[in-house]
Amino acid sequence: MPDVPLINWPATRLGETAQPESRTLALAEETPVNLRYNTMQYAVMIATARDIEDFCVGFSITEGIVAHADEIKSITLEDGDGFITADLRIPAEPFHRLMQASRRMVVGRTGCGVCGTEEAGQVLRPLPALPPGPPTSLAAIRRGLADLSDHQTLNKQARMLHGAAWCGLEGEIRLVREDVGRHNALDKLIGAGLRAGQNLSEGFCLLTSRCSYEMVQKSIIAGFRTIVAISAPTGLALRVAQQAGLTVVAIARSDSQMLFTGKLSD
Amino acid sequence: MPDVPLINWPATRLGETAQPESRTLALAEETPVNLRYNTMQYAVMIATARDIEDFCVGFSITEGIVAHADEIKSITLEDGDGFITADLRIPAEPFHRLMQASRRMVVGRTGCGVCGTEEAGQVLRPLPALPPGPPTSLAAIRRGLADLSDHQTLNKQARMLHGAAWCGLEGEIRLVREDVGRHNALDKLIGAGLRAGQNLSEGFCLLTSRCSYEMVQKSIIAGFRTIVAISAPTGLALRVAQQAGLTVVAIARSDSQMLFTGKLSD
Repeated sequence: MPDVPLINWPATRLGETAQPESRTLALAEETPVNLRYNTMQYAVMIATARDIEDFCVGFSITEGIVAHADEIKSITLEDGDGFITADLRIPAEPFHRLMQASRRMVVGRTGCGVCGTEEAGQVLRPLPALPPGPPTSLAAIRRGLADLSDHQTLNKQARMLHGAAWCGLEGEIRLVREDVGRHNALDKLIGAGLRAGQNLSEGFCLLTSRCSYEMVQKSIIAGFRTIVAISAPTGLALRVAQQAGLTVVAIARSDSQMLFTGKLSD
Repeated sequence: MPDVPLINWPATRLGETAQPESRTLALAEETPVNLRYNTMQYAVMIATARDIEDFCVGFSITEGIVAHADEIKSITLEDGDGFITADLRIPAEPFHRLMQASRRMVVGRTGCGVCGTEEAGQVLRPLPALPPGPPTSLAAIRRGLADLSDHQTLNKQARMLHGAAWCGLEGEIRLVREDVGRHNALDKLIGAGLRAGQNLSEGFCLLTSRCSYEMVQKSIIAGFRTIVAISAPTGLALRVAQQAGLTVVAIARSDSQMLFTGKLSD
């Protein structure tokens, strides 16, 4: 199990009429990432082995482990036998909170996007207020949509990776991150932006994936005021977005886009 | 937050040239499901509120909590305020094992598909040997692929749900389950089959989704010998499949299919 983002695999193509044909395909790899805080084992996430430091920062922020990127004092990555161990150092205060929370979760195992949730009633977390600002323009969204695929370098090779992009107010693509998991792609994007000291609310978030409620929660925590998803949103995602004042555009294709919550300018 | 599989949402379609147009769209809902074993809170999963009993059984088997469906003595579902609580009763022995495992995981929070994994090195679980049997025929796979969409009743309304089907040896679709999450769709399918006392190895598993390594692990635990996925597989999924002797056909479209591991008959 190599720590590479993509691998090649020899396959056989079976067409309706032609003879079977050998083809080597580029596929996404899945790499388990051990996340440790101050040497304490915390979580195993399955990710694409690229931009793991960005992922660590984004995950730590959107999971509420730290409030600011600069609370992460260091990240040390170590290649295991088929996995990566990421050792993060954080100050005593957030680490103490994390240990307290972990103790409460002794039997609180959770699935994707609900990490740390002990009971179903806690799935919807309190979210920060969105920073004020003008609506995103439809023209900017269309520019971002048109330009995105050119920036998905891994997905150009293996057409199965999710992309998350931060676009500026004019729709220009400022940052893109990719992962086989959509949550990870967004965490990487958020981490990359915050590590670079960017104000993510100056622009919008563009996702190739479905817009489920965790994607909305992560976006609000990062300060995005508009999220644009190529796939469809869920009902729960839209209710969370509406409550927070997040604008959601989804089923966003080159020739048409659907506005589900909030508003846009022309 | 209603416990319904789909909801309607009023949206605005923004086309290239035409005026904005109001449209009401059917969308998938996400419902948190509290899973409890013998009153012990165990996990929160986000699911489509349909066939939850099937999901409970499939999840319990593929997570290794019980070995057989009949070890689940009862399932009681209760509607909460926007979530569902599922109370499962299991015998003392598996419950004791579960409590032991939970104790080991005090700080072992995990993401999707790696529930209960304390360290990255434990992501790949020991898997049972596949039951012997003849290879699946390409004709049967093509029949299943051609017929699947007619059986996806929820996805016909909101085109954003994953489907998992059990097809017989001739490719006839025997069972279909749907969910907004691909892992859940497969767990529901496995649960439905095992609750009905079916031998799932007599036939194959057909998935609309990506074939990631957890999908392969679940399929092997259920006894499928062939898995057919409409989307692409990951490298890790294929290595796990190869080791177990599971045949994987993926990027499976109506006019062509790719064979990645194992073999088929004509």
